[in-house]
Amino acid sequence: MKTKRGKLSKSQRRKRPSERELIELFTRLISKNKHRPPGLVLGVGDDTAVVSGDAKRDLILTTDIQVEDIHFKRSWFSGPELGWRLAAVNLSDVAAMGGRPLYALLSLAIPPRLSPAYVKGIEKGVAAHLGRYGAAIVGGNISKTEKNLICDIMLIGSSSKNRAWRRNCRPGRDAIVVVGTLGSARAGLRLLKSRSRHAGYASLVRAFKKPQPLLEVAELLSDNPAIHGAIDVSDGFSTDVIHICERSGAGCEVNAPELPIARSLQRFCKERREDTIEWALEGGEDYALILSVAEEKAEKIAGRLQATLKKPARVVGKFTKRKGRYELLTADRRRTSFSAKGWDHFAA
Amino acid sequence: MKTKRGKLSKSQRRKRPSERELIELFTRLISKNKHRPPGLVLGVGDDTAVVSGDAKRDLILTTDIQVEDIHFKRSWFSGPELGWRLAAVNLSDVAAMGGRPLYALLSLAIPPRLSPAYVKGIEKGVAAHLGRYGAAIVGGNISKTEKNLICDIMLIGSSSKNRAWRRNCRPGRDAIVVVGTLGSARAGLRLLKSRSRHAGYASLVRAFKKPQPLLEVAELLSDNPAIHGAIDVSDGFSTDVIHICERSGAGCEVNAPELPIARSLQRFCKERREDTIEWALEGGEDYALILSVAEEKAEKIAGRLQATLKKPARVVGKFTKRKGRYELLTADRRRTSFSAKGWDHFAA
Repeated sequence: MKTKRGKLSKSQRRKRPSERELIELFTRLISKNKHRPPGLVLGVGDDTAVVSGDAKRDLILTTDIQVEDIHFKRSWFSGPELGWRLAAVNLSDVAAMGGRPLYALLSLAIPPRLSPAYVKGIEKGVAAHLGRYGAAIVGGNISKTEKNLICDIMLIGSSSKNRAWRRNCRPGRDAIVVVGTLGSARAGLRLLKSRSRHAGYASLVRAFKKPQPLLEVAELLSDNPAIHGAIDVSDGFSTDVIHICERSGAGCEVNAPELPIARSLQRFCKERREDTIEWALEGGEDYALILSVAEEKAEKIAGRLQATLKKPARVVGKFTKRKGRYELLTADRRRTSFSAKGWDHFAA
Repeated sequence: MKTKRGKLSKSQRRKRPSERELIELFTRLISKNKHRPPGLVLGVGDDTAVVSGDAKRDLILTTDIQVEDIHFKRSWFSGPELGWRLAAVNLSDVAAMGGRPLYALLSLAIPPRLSPAYVKGIEKGVAAHLGRYGAAIVGGNISKTEKNLICDIMLIGSSSKNRAWRRNCRPGRDAIVVVGTLGSARAGLRLLKSRSRHAGYASLVRAFKKPQPLLEVAELLSDNPAIHGAIDVSDGFSTDVIHICERSGAGCEVNAPELPIARSLQRFCKERREDTIEWALEGGEDYALILSVAEEKAEKIAGRLQATLKKPARVVGKFTKRKGRYELLTADRRRTSFSAKGWDHFAA
């Protein structure tokens, strides 16, 4: 559940709201829920819900529904590849809470033309990816459908008691650390959609097809008091960093040259005369992590992450007290502003 | 996950397996899972999975995916009615474990023609039904789809530590108690599908549209040592009672005249020259409960349930040591056998 609350927009009142608007509507509805069940720590509005577990841990609950021809084309994925990606999207939500994945339920709705071998492949891919982190499918459900393949994973994980990372920051006192690269998955999706030859861009296609949930970050830092919040980059850096700002009444200042951009994306943008920074800001589905880190510890923590994970981990800016002001400092020292652009699937 | 394991059948090797076969395939795949996560008490194969919670309780996890035009026609349901039913199907799984519902995640995939008001209605119906038992939606996910509306609920509940009811019985020592009526929902579905006038049969249509999960049974009996197992009747009494028998190497003997059949179903069958007992045996989706109860306590417990719930609760037979023999004693004292017929959705 990745969106802020707000009023019903004009297009929501029309008959065909966008996916983003549907999510907003849905989030608002659920959060209005009259009943507050016992043990609920954190409801709708963060990467996962949080409920009380035992004396030492909380449980974190997340779900993600992926629809053929909306989120993916089946022709792009073998069964195991699709399963791997489905797991990744949910595992990333657990990573963004500083958590550890435990149990998954897998629901599938299968169109008539789909072979049992493909179904088997999906399940294998999900199980293999979960297994990498000690988690497993413990239940699920399967049904037929008429047209699109529908895959829904519900993942339960745990976090240390009262230590789940929220979409928070301390305005004026936290740096913004990004782990992973930005924009590559969107470029990979563009390549897949254009059916152009991917020669030289295999890494971009892979960024979309096989994103890496950053659970090692959670493992390394889950009890580190310098971390004051986190979110995974599913909607795009600009949208997701603003989610953190909004939750804490903050603004932010981002140094464009620090944004972690893969060389292949730089080449991709150059060839196509696209703005690399724009791609990094608005990408989406990279499942990089944005962390709010105590300013004085940020460089050290980023360095430690980079050394341990062999992945980019950079201080890209800071959270400011200028609520609602989202500023970008460019390489030539200009100061511009950015907003939440995010993306609607397949509109990218 | 409601099916036994077995070998891949011929039709599973063909391209278009039935829903039942898909479920079998899927169950087998998941149960082969190499990774056993920490705290897993009971995996695939019962009404819910069970995992360790805290010192006093276990957590139970279930999911059910319902697909438009496979499990329901949208024209039959208002949004809140559909939401109510979605919750019922999952709540019933919790009831069958002797559990208490706590938290739900709701995933929807929405076709283009569906209005936000209908979506809102679904969420309200789910929330209202969960709220009746102190549970609530704490998260979820929404997406677009091209054709069918897809609704998936994951429900988390709790049961007393090591006391979750499984699909067990003690062969030769337990009676079979049924709470609720059998066959009505299937008749209601038939009426809805035939679009015939439902005059005089509102209760049958209601049995399909608005099933009552029997959580009061769980509440009254969850810690009663006379209860040795349970299952909810989703596939049909014959199929579901056999699930219990198979799990414990038992047979069963069922007294046909004791099967709880609503008067309206008797009238429905008489008018259509259908066999009432067959409808009760093979019905499905009634969400009645089958309990394995210590023989000497069964009549008393059934009487207490009936008095408290104002619903039929009857000793309908017993679990025997004759493994794999499923016998029916008819009103005229004939002894016949029955098998698992179950149903494929919309083949009923």
